Amino acid sequence: MAKSRTPVEKALENGAETRVEISVDIAGLMSEIEALAQISEGDPPVVTRVVFSEADSRARAYVKELCQAAGLAIREDAVGNTFARWEGRDPALAPVATGSHIDAIPNAGAYDGVVGVLGGLEAIRTLQRSGFRPNRSIELIIFTSEEPTRFGIGCLGSRMMAGAISPEQALVLQDKTGRGLDELRHSAGFTGDLAAVKLAAGDYNSFVELHIEQGPLLEREGLGLGVVTHIAAPASLRILIEGEGGHAGAMLMPDRHDALAAGAELILALETAAKTTGAIDTVATVGVCEVFPGAVNSVPSRVRLETDVRDTDSARRDGVLTALKGAATEVAARRGVRISFETVNADPPATCDPAILAALDASIVAAGRSARRMVSRAYHDSLFMARIAPVAMLFIPCRGGVSHRPDEYASPHWIEAGVDVLARTLARLACQ
Amino acid sequence: MAKSRTPVEKALENGAETRVEISVDIAGLMSEIEALAQISEGDPPVVTRVVFSEADSRARAYVKELCQAAGLAIREDAVGNTFARWEGRDPALAPVATGSHIDAIPNAGAYDGVVGVLGGLEAIRTLQRSGFRPNRSIELIIFTSEEPTRFGIGCLGSRMMAGAISPEQALVLQDKTGRGLDELRHSAGFTGDLAAVKLAAGDYNSFVELHIEQGPLLEREGLGLGVVTHIAAPASLRILIEGEGGHAGAMLMPDRHDALAAGAELILALETAAKTTGAIDTVATVGVCEVFPGAVNSVPSRVRLETDVRDTDSARRDGVLTALKGAATEVAARRGVRISFETVNADPPATCDPAILAALDASIVAAGRSARRMVSRAYHDSLFMARIAPVAMLFIPCRGGVSHRPDEYASPHWIEAGVDVLARTLARLACQ
Repeated sequence: MAKSRTPVEKALENGAETRVEISVDIAGLMSEIEALAQISEGDPPVVTRVVFSEADSRARAYVKELCQAAGLAIREDAVGNTFARWEGRDPALAPVATGSHIDAIPNAGAYDGVVGVLGGLEAIRTLQRSGFRPNRSIELIIFTSEEPTRFGIGCLGSRMMAGAISPEQALVLQDKTGRGLDELRHSAGFTGDLAAVKLAAGDYNSFVELHIEQGPLLEREGLGLGVVTHIAAPASLRILIEGEGGHAGAMLMPDRHDALAAGAELILALETAAKTTGAIDTVATVGVCEVFPGAVNSVPSRVRLETDVRDTDSARRDGVLTALKGAATEVAARRGVRISFETVNADPPATCDPAILAALDASIVAAGRSARRMVSRAYHDSLFMARIAPVAMLFIPCRGGVSHRPDEYASPHWIEAGVDVLARTLARLACQ
Repeated sequence: MAKSRTPVEKALENGAETRVEISVDIAGLMSEIEALAQISEGDPPVVTRVVFSEADSRARAYVKELCQAAGLAIREDAVGNTFARWEGRDPALAPVATGSHIDAIPNAGAYDGVVGVLGGLEAIRTLQRSGFRPNRSIELIIFTSEEPTRFGIGCLGSRMMAGAISPEQALVLQDKTGRGLDELRHSAGFTGDLAAVKLAAGDYNSFVELHIEQGPLLEREGLGLGVVTHIAAPASLRILIEGEGGHAGAMLMPDRHDALAAGAELILALETAAKTTGAIDTVATVGVCEVFPGAVNSVPSRVRLETDVRDTDSARRDGVLTALKGAATEVAARRGVRISFETVNADPPATCDPAILAALDASIVAAGRSARRMVSRAYHDSLFMARIAPVAMLFIPCRGGVSHRPDEYASPHWIEAGVDVLARTLARLACQ
């Protein structure tokens, strides 16, 4: 238990009857979000920050500078996960952590991940300004490559932290141009031992991630914030279809083994499988379709699809994958093409920690905010942090449920509410 | 009529009863084909020579050197069409021409186009070695950008020569990186006035193109060479599908307007439309499918398809396009996406000239070869040369009907037969 606590500290930590006013600098935070959005491989409002790109490096530098200005001590691991620490009264205790990611898929927006990083930092600064001093250290974590753009696998940083992917498995990852993880992390300045990225259960007391919902529920229902109880189980498959190429004029229709026509059938089969589970939580997407040789007058000989299937229920999700593979077998036989599957990941769902949920609930009440319980169908670094620490997530509404697009938007009102609740929750957790 | 003709000339020109032996240097020609195949943006056996690339420039230089060694006079027009002239006894007469192209789509083979260029040159050299001297000049034409890879439109050089595309229309053409025709031709050293590319009807007496079949008929039937009577009518459409993007995890299935799922339906609708005309000559292909943003965890917001539809009958071909557009209207309404069509080209078919066909027939007999009449479903520069000159084409069999692939292959036996017949045909035409 904390000793020599000030009244503010006691109130923040214990949820005193008296409302403690803390003051989020929402104007400052919004201009930081705006400034980070300018660091992009695309022209504003397009945000594109692929991990280990020059834009990613500049964004990391910007955030680290802000952390240093807040007096936080910075550590970076071998894959670029970044830890900014506000030392607690008792440095020996496992820290409380918050954070998210700043990498962005091509043509994305300004809020996904960023609200959890810059908002997490502002939560820490808000507590600092209030005169609060935590018992446990509080850390802000910026995870490497939450987005799968470069390596085809999401949450690379947290996945490695949790030991869900070994250094050996990580080292075979390549981007589309054939550049491997090792070459790319070195080029971005991260040269340490990948084996040291993995953390142990107990290294963190707890982890709370603030994030935009990336879905339409909160805005549609108007109930305020979202307290996430479960994170859906994502699976990602790469599908390679090998047919027979030829001249688009001369190759007769009965002689064809067109890889793209076969791919079109699989795209529709996956959509049908997802729609027919009967559960609104089942979603499936083919987001990548690469055609070889990709010339207008050439019958496609090879197609590579990348698919993403998610559900709150692993078994139901796996049923969709089974239906897709059944359709592929039939299409391959009928069209005389070869279809092979590679499972990129098929992760179990995560359940949020009841004690953190209770801290969130109490903080929502203390902040005078409203919220609903919900499921995250998007996955997050919390999915992997859950393997080594108690976790929970706090969602804020985003306009139209839109994300991964330049017109992604979360209002200052809701960002302020999220940071307010996050700050109070970190304070509560940091005294335990 | 020619004066002071030698017996060889008279025999070649008039189809004397006596067989005239002419000697194609097939070994030399095959090693030139081999050498040209090494000039590629890909590693052998892959041939990739996109127009105005560095490989295209090197290939042009190689062919021009061979032409100069044969004593031909070279002219290049403003878009890079190259004319290598063997001056006839009467330079005032409209020349006889042969030729084809040396550009190659990505991941192509060594024979498409090249057999008509290097084989055309060898036909000229064969006549030179035989002691023949033409009355009309004989020209070898190397056409710029027969392949649509760079600018999305096939036969750019012959299209401009025939006035089927105006300089103004040509100047708006761009490649995928946004580089325009003018910038690219300048970078390749072609700086003249584009308006001067257009030729007049009558500038050429006749044009005969030697080409591999790029289809399976000749090999399958074993009847030897193919004398082309018609060139099928090609059409190419670009289709833009605009849906709504979003996060692949959070965007619920009932809320989606997935551009790629809509595209998959169109790919299959086009295939069905082509298969159900009841004519074996109808072919349709979607060779390009570009997905935006193209990330595994993002619902596709935009898809661009490039389609190629051909038929020997324009009306039947246009019926396929009508069926596709009907399907698109239904898909757009049902899925809540926008679908727009851009006609890149929709060219009429070409009919080969009876007098050239007669010269080909007589040359086949004189050479002791066999042939069948046939239709070209692939299009060629001859399709556009037909607008300004009498044309015909001579096909040689290729293994398995395979083309636009690295394993494209035509045997020395059939290449020699084609060059032999081409040389005799040029001789006949050059005396008229």
